[in-house]
Amino acid sequence: MEVSWEQSVTDSINTIYLLFSAYLVFVMQLGFAMLCAGSVRAKNAMNIMLTNVVDAVVGSISYYLFGFAFAFGDGSNSNPFIGTNFFALYNIPNTSYDYSFFLYQWAFAIAVAGITSGSIAERTQFTAYLFFSFFLTGFVYPIVAHWVWSSSGWLSPSSSGLLFGSGAIDFAGSGVVHLVGGIAGLWGSFIEGPRVGRFDAFGKPVPMRGHNATLVVLGTFLLWFGWFGFNPGSFDKILVAYPDSTSQGNWTAVGRTAVTTTLAGSAAGIVTLFGRRLLVGHWDALDVCNGLLGGFVAITSGCSVFDDPLEATQLHGGCGAWGLIFTGLFAKEEFVIQAYNSGETGVVRPYGLLMGGGWGLLGAQVVEVLMIVGWVSVTMGPLFYGLHKLGILRISSDEEIAGLDISRHGGYAYAHQEEDRPHFYADYVRMQN
Amino acid sequence: MEVSWEQSVTDSINTIYLLFSAYLVFVMQLGFAMLCAGSVRAKNAMNIMLTNVVDAVVGSISYYLFGFAFAFGDGSNSNPFIGTNFFALYNIPNTSYDYSFFLYQWAFAIAVAGITSGSIAERTQFTAYLFFSFFLTGFVYPIVAHWVWSSSGWLSPSSSGLLFGSGAIDFAGSGVVHLVGGIAGLWGSFIEGPRVGRFDAFGKPVPMRGHNATLVVLGTFLLWFGWFGFNPGSFDKILVAYPDSTSQGNWTAVGRTAVTTTLAGSAAGIVTLFGRRLLVGHWDALDVCNGLLGGFVAITSGCSVFDDPLEATQLHGGCGAWGLIFTGLFAKEEFVIQAYNSGETGVVRPYGLLMGGGWGLLGAQVVEVLMIVGWVSVTMGPLFYGLHKLGILRISSDEEIAGLDISRHGGYAYAHQEEDRPHFYADYVRMQN
Amino acid sequence: MEVSWEQSVTDSINTIYLLFSAYLVFVMQLGFAMLCAGSVRAKNAMNIMLTNVVDAVVGSISYYLFGFAFAFGDGSNSNPFIGTNFFALYNIPNTSYDYSFFLYQWAFAIAVAGITSGSIAERTQFTAYLFFSFFLTGFVYPIVAHWVWSSSGWLSPSSSGLLFGSGAIDFAGSGVVHLVGGIAGLWGSFIEGPRVGRFDAFGKPVPMRGHNATLVVLGTFLLWFGWFGFNPGSFDKILVAYPDSTSQGNWTAVGRTAVTTTLAGSAAGIVTLFGRRLLVGHWDALDVCNGLLGGFVAITSGCSVFDDPLEATQLHGGCGAWGLIFTGLFAKEEFVIQAYNSGETGVVRPYGLLMGGGWGLLGAQVVEVLMIVGWVSVTMGPLFYGLHKLGILRISSDEEIAGLDISRHGGYAYAHQEEDRPHFYADYVRMQN
Repeated sequence: MEVSWEQSVTDSINTIYLLFSAYLVFVMQLGFAMLCAGSVRAKNAMNIMLTNVVDAVVGSISYYLFGFAFAFGDGSNSNPFIGTNFFALYNIPNTSYDYSFFLYQWAFAIAVAGITSGSIAERTQFTAYLFFSFFLTGFVYPIVAHWVWSSSGWLSPSSSGLLFGSGAIDFAGSGVVHLVGGIAGLWGSFIEGPRVGRFDAFGKPVPMRGHNATLVVLGTFLLWFGWFGFNPGSFDKILVAYPDSTSQGNWTAVGRTAVTTTLAGSAAGIVTLFGRRLLVGHWDALDVCNGLLGGFVAITSGCSVFDDPLEATQLHGGCGAWGLIFTGLFAKEEFVIQAYNSGETGVVRPYGLLMGGGWGLLGAQVVEVLMIVGWVSVTMGPLFYGLHKLGILRISSDEEIAGLDISRHGGYAYAHQEEDRPHFYADYVRMQN
Repeated sequence: MEVSWEQSVTDSINTIYLLFSAYLVFVMQLGFAMLCAGSVRAKNAMNIMLTNVVDAVVGSISYYLFGFAFAFGDGSNSNPFIGTNFFALYNIPNTSYDYSFFLYQWAFAIAVAGITSGSIAERTQFTAYLFFSFFLTGFVYPIVAHWVWSSSGWLSPSSSGLLFGSGAIDFAGSGVVHLVGGIAGLWGSFIEGPRVGRFDAFGKPVPMRGHNATLVVLGTFLLWFGWFGFNPGSFDKILVAYPDSTSQGNWTAVGRTAVTTTLAGSAAGIVTLFGRRLLVGHWDALDVCNGLLGGFVAITSGCSVFDDPLEATQLHGGCGAWGLIFTGLFAKEEFVIQAYNSGETGVVRPYGLLMGGGWGLLGAQVVEVLMIVGWVSVTMGPLFYGLHKLGILRISSDEEIAGLDISRHGGYAYAHQEEDRPHFYADYVRMQN
Repeated sequence: MEVSWEQSVTDSINTIYLLFSAYLVFVMQLGFAMLCAGSVRAKNAMNIMLTNVVDAVVGSISYYLFGFAFAFGDGSNSNPFIGTNFFALYNIPNTSYDYSFFLYQWAFAIAVAGITSGSIAERTQFTAYLFFSFFLTGFVYPIVAHWVWSSSGWLSPSSSGLLFGSGAIDFAGSGVVHLVGGIAGLWGSFIEGPRVGRFDAFGKPVPMRGHNATLVVLGTFLLWFGWFGFNPGSFDKILVAYPDSTSQGNWTAVGRTAVTTTLAGSAAGIVTLFGRRLLVGHWDALDVCNGLLGGFVAITSGCSVFDDPLEATQLHGGCGAWGLIFTGLFAKEEFVIQAYNSGETGVVRPYGLLMGGGWGLLGAQVVEVLMIVGWVSVTMGPLFYGLHKLGILRISSDEEIAGLDISRHGGYAYAHQEEDRPHFYADYVRMQN
C-alpha cells in the first residue's frame, strides 16, 4: 500500500501524541493505587493495592476480548447501541494509528474500575471484586462509550443522526468515565453497607483516618500528571489529515485544554483550602487533595449518606454529572465548532443554553446523565445484589476488624523489624528485664 | 484563517514537544514534595507536603492572573522592566502554540516557590507561607523572567538593544529560577532563625535527620525525570517555522542538552559519593542525592551559616550563581550562535571570556547575578521581615516541638494501627497482662 | 549544511519520539529502586536504594566514556566484535538524532546493573558493587549490544553478513539486556552464597518478607510505565527518512508493540494471580507484581537453588532466554519483514521454525543465548570470584544481621519520632509510670 509523505507525517505525529497521552493516562492507575492505599487503614493497604493491579491486568484482558469491540467495533453492521466488531482486535484495519487508539481507550477503561474500587474499599471479598471489575470494564462501561463516543452512537455529537440536533458533548468523559464509575460505586457501597465502626450508636459518622498522608499526596500529584493525558489527549489527533484546508489541526485547543485543566483543579483546591479552614479550623492537606481532584472532574458539593471510604461517589459521580450539565449551560459556540468540527460544513448546531445556544445541547446532556444513571443501575445494581445474596460480596466482621491483608492476602503490607525503631525498642527491651 | 500545511506540521510538532516537556517539569513539583517530606521529621511531613500542593494551586492562580503578564506580556507598549499585557490570558493571540507556552512557563513558576519552601521548613506559619508563595510566584519571579527571557527584557540575549552587546545567557534558568528561589530562601531562613535544637549550647550544629530516606530517593529520581523537561525543553521549539533555510531546527541541541544534563548530575553525584566517603567514612545515599541535584543546577561548594533544612539556599542559590558565571567564562562560540541564532545575520557576539570571547558576556552574567540578588532581597527581605514583625511568620516553640501537623493540620501524616506491628504488639499486650 | 524541509520534519519527529521514550526507560531506574527497597528488610533499604542511584550515576560516566563506544562505535575500522569509535562521544557526527540515540541507549545500559543488583541484595560490600556496576555497564553489556544491535555485529539481523542467513532477532533486548543482567546476577548470588537465615538447618528456605508492599506496587507500576519506552521505543525511528516510498514509517508497529507489551504483562499477571491462589491459598499482590514483570520480559517457569532476594535471575535470565527461543519458534514472516525492513530489496529471510520459516532464525537465537551465557560467565564470574578472594565482596555476618544501613551508610532509612505513634506511645509512657 502506497502512503503519501503527508499522510506519513500526519500518522507519525498523531501516533506520538496519542501514545504518550495514553502512557500518562496509565499513570493514573498508579495514582489511584497510591491515593487509595494512603486513604485506608494500614491493615487493608495490600488489599486495595491488589485491586488496583487487578483493574489493570483483568481489565486489560476483558477490554481486549470484549470491551473495545462493544465500544468502537463499528462496521457495515454498526448500530447505535453496541459495537459488534474487532473482538480481540480481530480484523482491525492495519492502518494509521489503530493500535494507539486502542491503547488510549484501554487506559480510560481500566480507570473506571479504579474509581469504583475506592467506594467499596476495606470490606469487599476479593472474588466479588474480580467479577465486578471484569464486568464493568468489559461490558457496562464500553456500552456507554459506544453511545457517546462512537461515530454510530445514538448520543454521539458526531453521528449522522444527532439527538435533538446536537448530541451530547462529553469530551473527555465526565459522564462516560466518572459518572459511570461513581454510580457503580454508589450501588456497591449501598448494598455492602458501611464499614464496622463507621457510624456510632447515634448514627453519627466516626472519622476513620487513612494510614499514610504521603501516599495521598503522591497519588494526587500522579493523578494530576495523568490528567494531562486524559483531557488534552482526548482530541485523539493533533494534526488533521492532509489536505484539509479549513481545519488543519487541534494544537491550540490541546494546549488550551491543558491550561483549563490546571486552572480548574487549582481553583477547586484553593476553594477547598480556605473553605475547610473556615469550617474545621485547620489547613487540611488531604481535603485540598480531594478538592483538587474534584476540580479536575468538575465542581460539586455533594453529600454522603452512606460509607464511601474514598468519597468516590460524590467526587466522580457528582462532579461528573455537574460537568455534563455545566457544559449544556455554558459551552461556547466557537469551542463547540472547534472541537466537533461542524464549522466546515456550515451547519449551525446548538451550544450552551445560557450562551444563547438553545435547548438542544442541554437536553442531550440531561439525557446522557439519566441514561448513564439508569444503565449502570440496572447492570451493576443486580450484580452487586447477586453477589450479596450469594454471600460472596462482603467479608465477615471478624475479618474486617482483623483487616483484609492478614485474612486474605497472607500478611500485612508493612513488616517492621526491630531495627526500625532503635531507641524505642531499646527502651522496650530494657523494660522486659 | 488559512494556515499552510508546513505551518500546521510545525505547530503540531512544537506543541507536542513543549506540552510534554511542561508535563515533565510539573513532575518536579511532586519530586519536591517527596524530597521535602522525606527530609523533615515525621511530625512536619503533612505540613511541608501541603506547602508543595499550595505552591501548585495558589501559584497557578497567581501566575495566571498576574505572573505571566508581568513576565511575557509584551505588546505595543512593551518595556524592558515589566510586561503589561495578557493578564488572566486576556487577549492572548489565539494562534500557534500560545497555551503550551503558558503551561510550560507556569510549570517553571511554581517550581521557584518549591525551591524556597525547603529553606523555611518545619517552623513557618501557614498563613505566612500563603503570602510568600503568592507574592513570589505572581510578582518577584516573573519580573526577573521578563528581564532575561522576554524579547523586550533589558538583560535578554535576544532583545534589540543587547546589554554590553551580549545580553545575559541564562538558558533554562540557573539565575531566573534557582538563584531567585535560593535568595528568597536565604532571607526567609535568616529572618526566621534556626529550628529549635538545631544548634547546641556552643553553636555547633546538631544533625536533624529526615524521617524517610525512601521518599528522598523517590523525590530525587522524580526531579531527575522532570529535569529532562526543564533543560531540553527550554528551546521552546524543536522545529523552526518553515521556510527558514539556514536554521531548520534544534533537534541536535535538544538531544545534546539531555545528555549534558545527565552527565552533569552524574559527575556531581560521583564526586559527592567519594568525597563524603573520605570525609565522614560511610557511603551516604542522601548526600549523593543532594550532590546529584547540585550537579543539575550547576556545581558548587557553598557553606551554611544558618539553618536551611533542605540546604536549598546553597544548592539552588550557590549552584545557580556559579552556573551563570561559568557560562560567562566557558560558553563556546558555536553553542552561543546555535542557541541564540545570531549566526544567520552575520552578527558577531561575545562568548566565554576564557574561550577568547571578550568581556561582554561575562559582564552581562555578573550583572544578572547582582540584579537578582538585589531585586529578590529588596522584595522578599521586607516581606519576610514584615510578616515577622506582625508575628505571623514563625510558629511558637511549643508548636514547633509538637510539630506542625498536629498543631495546624489536624493530625499526623501517619496513623499507625496496632496491626502494623503484629509480633511487637503481641508482646506488648502480653506484658500488660 | 543545508538540510531539506522533509529531513528537518523527520528528524524533529524522531527526536521527540526517541527522547521521550528514553525518559520513560529512565523511570525504570526509579521503579527498580522502589521495587528493591520494598522487597528487602528495612535495615537494608538505604543500601539498596543507594546501589540504584549508583547504577545511574556511575553507569552514566562508564557508559559515556567507554560503553557507548564499545557498543555502537562503528566507523571505517568497524569489526563484528567490538566498537572502536566515539569514546566520550568524541567525534560523534553532529547530525540527525545522534544525542537522542545515545540517551536512549544509556537508559538501557543503566537498567542492566539495576536488574543484577536485586540478586546480590542485602549482603554485598558497597566497594564490590562499585566495581561490578562500572565493569558491567561499561564493558560486558556493551559488547553484547554490539554483537546484536550494531550494524557491524556478527549476530546482528541487519549486518551485511547474516549469521545462518538470518541473524538473531532480539528487538528490545530479552537477551542483550535481561539475560545479561540475569546471568551476572546468578554468578554474583552463587559466589556470595545465601543470606544469613535464608535456609533452615534442613536446607528448607525460610521466607524473608520485604518491609513495604506499597513500595513494591509503586515500583511495579513505574516499571510498567517505563516499559512503554523500552519496547515501543526500540524502533528508534517512527518516521523513515524521506523519500522512501515503500516503507514510510513504523507508527502501526510502534502502537502494536505498546499493545502487546500490555497484554503480555496482564496475561502473566492473571495467570500468577490464580496460580498462586491455588498453590498457597491467598490472593498475593506481590506475586502478581512479579508475574506481571515476568510477563513483560517473557514467560518463564524457572526454579531457584540459591538465594536471589528479588528473584532477578529466574525473572530476567529465564524469561529473557525463553523470549529469545520463543521468537525463533513463532516469529511471523510479515513481522520480521516489517521490523527488519528486508522486504524492500526482495530478499527472503528465515522466520519462526513453527511458522514454516526454517532453522536459520532459531539457530541464530540459540547461538545468542549460548554466547551471552558464556560471555557474561567468563567476565562476571571471575570478577565476582576475585572480589570474593580479596575479601571485599561480602559483608560479615555481624554486619549482615545488624543491617547494611547502620554499618555502612550512617543510619537507617527511617527515623521514627515519638509523634509517629501517639496513642501507642501514650500507653507505653503510662506503663512506665
